[in-house]
Amino acid sequence: MIQFYAPEIAATGMLPETESGHCCRVLRMKEGEHIFVTDGLGHRYECIILEANPKHTSVEIIAMEKISPWWGFRLELCVAPSKNADRMEWLVEKAVEIGVDRIVLMKCSRSERKTLRTDRLEKIAISAMNQSLKTNRTLIEGPVSFNELIEDRFSGFKCLGYCDDAYPLKSFAQEYKGGDVRIMIGPEGDFSPDEVIVAVNNGYMPVTFGGSRLRLETAALYSAVAAHVVGDKLDN
Amino acid sequence: MIQFYAPEIAATGMLPETESGHCCRVLRMKEGEHIFVTDGLGHRYECIILEANPKHTSVEIIAMEKISPWWGFRLELCVAPSKNADRMEWLVEKAVEIGVDRIVLMKCSRSERKTLRTDRLEKIAISAMNQSLKTNRTLIEGPVSFNELIEDRFSGFKCLGYCDDAYPLKSFAQEYKGGDVRIMIGPEGDFSPDEVIVAVNNGYMPVTFGGSRLRLETAALYSAVAAHVVGDKLDN
Repeated sequence: MIQFYAPEIAATGMLPETESGHCCRVLRMKEGEHIFVTDGLGHRYECIILEANPKHTSVEIIAMEKISPWWGFRLELCVAPSKNADRMEWLVEKAVEIGVDRIVLMKCSRSERKTLRTDRLEKIAISAMNQSLKTNRTLIEGPVSFNELIEDRFSGFKCLGYCDDAYPLKSFAQEYKGGDVRIMIGPEGDFSPDEVIVAVNNGYMPVTFGGSRLRLETAALYSAVAAHVVGDKLDN
Repeated sequence: MIQFYAPEIAATGMLPETESGHCCRVLRMKEGEHIFVTDGLGHRYECIILEANPKHTSVEIIAMEKISPWWGFRLELCVAPSKNADRMEWLVEKAVEIGVDRIVLMKCSRSERKTLRTDRLEKIAISAMNQSLKTNRTLIEGPVSFNELIEDRFSGFKCLGYCDDAYPLKSFAQEYKGGDVRIMIGPEGDFSPDEVIVAVNNGYMPVTFGGSRLRLETAALYSAVAAHVVGDKLDN
């Protein structure tokens, strides 16, 4: 099963240029072949290619299916971009495959990288969505400042990856009891003590992920899988 | 805290050439500085640099600590190498950070890549061990044939990532109850039906990881985290 992304598919019956190129030039698909197309909003359309044009492929929709994520809770990752951009691109691909609703690029006081090309991350997220046959697009937002995130209202389990003697070591997998969850992962230099105090005062719990010192993108991925392992189980 | 790897440290009091170069050339460390060195066998030595030589750095051991993995069970990943070697290198780095005892490169009937440079993977595993401050080296073995692996005696939970109508969908996180675990992840083309039958007949359970179609390295990583989330909890 091959899935493409076309946000306007229902209205236009066309694939965007990048997807058209992938369909016709890379995969060499032809008129009359069946493909699946998602609008990224939970719908998957079964289509037949009318014109296999590498710039604007047109299709006929023959069926539509509404597909909700199998996880019945909201999963948000707020991550301070790593110095190495590749590691963030990798994280976005993996997080989308595993299933995350929203990835926010977060500016912290110790962030060495304040910005990151979200357009590139969007492309990676879309191809990972198609690869893993999801129909709900993972939102990629930011950069957003740490304080702005802390102050917005998120009702659910809120935590930040942090281990310091100032706080008791609590394991995310032990503390998270399912339901909506937001996880903050700080920069290489970690959150500042002030940021941790602000977070704790706003209902965020400092948590650890497993027993070892993880790179930030590994911690983010660990937390996404752990949220699914705990949350999916309670959810089903 | 900076950790280096020197399998012979107790006998020789020297860092190997690659670690000496990293210590003196990259990190610019000097005589008299404190470093930590692991033999990869569960020991961490606190040392003082006697001669900061980029080819053969010598140290004085001032303390030794025996450190056991925090997870009290054996975790084995048997993975069919992906076509793209980078994805395997990435997997090894992440698996070592998260904590895996043994990674076996597995030859399956549908493997498109039968071999992979294990020396490169070893280097990546060592640097990930030091980065995540582990003192037990993750074994990287193979290539080993699927049948050879199936036939060896492994007492613990044995499973393979597979979803096909022929078998009921069982979630790894639901079925695994802690303790020693071996997880097999097949190639891009998946296990052959014959391989699955052989595996099932030898006590392997076909399992799924979350609800979406994952790339093989993502499935392997998901399984490693899930094993820790379930196993660490029962273990502590």
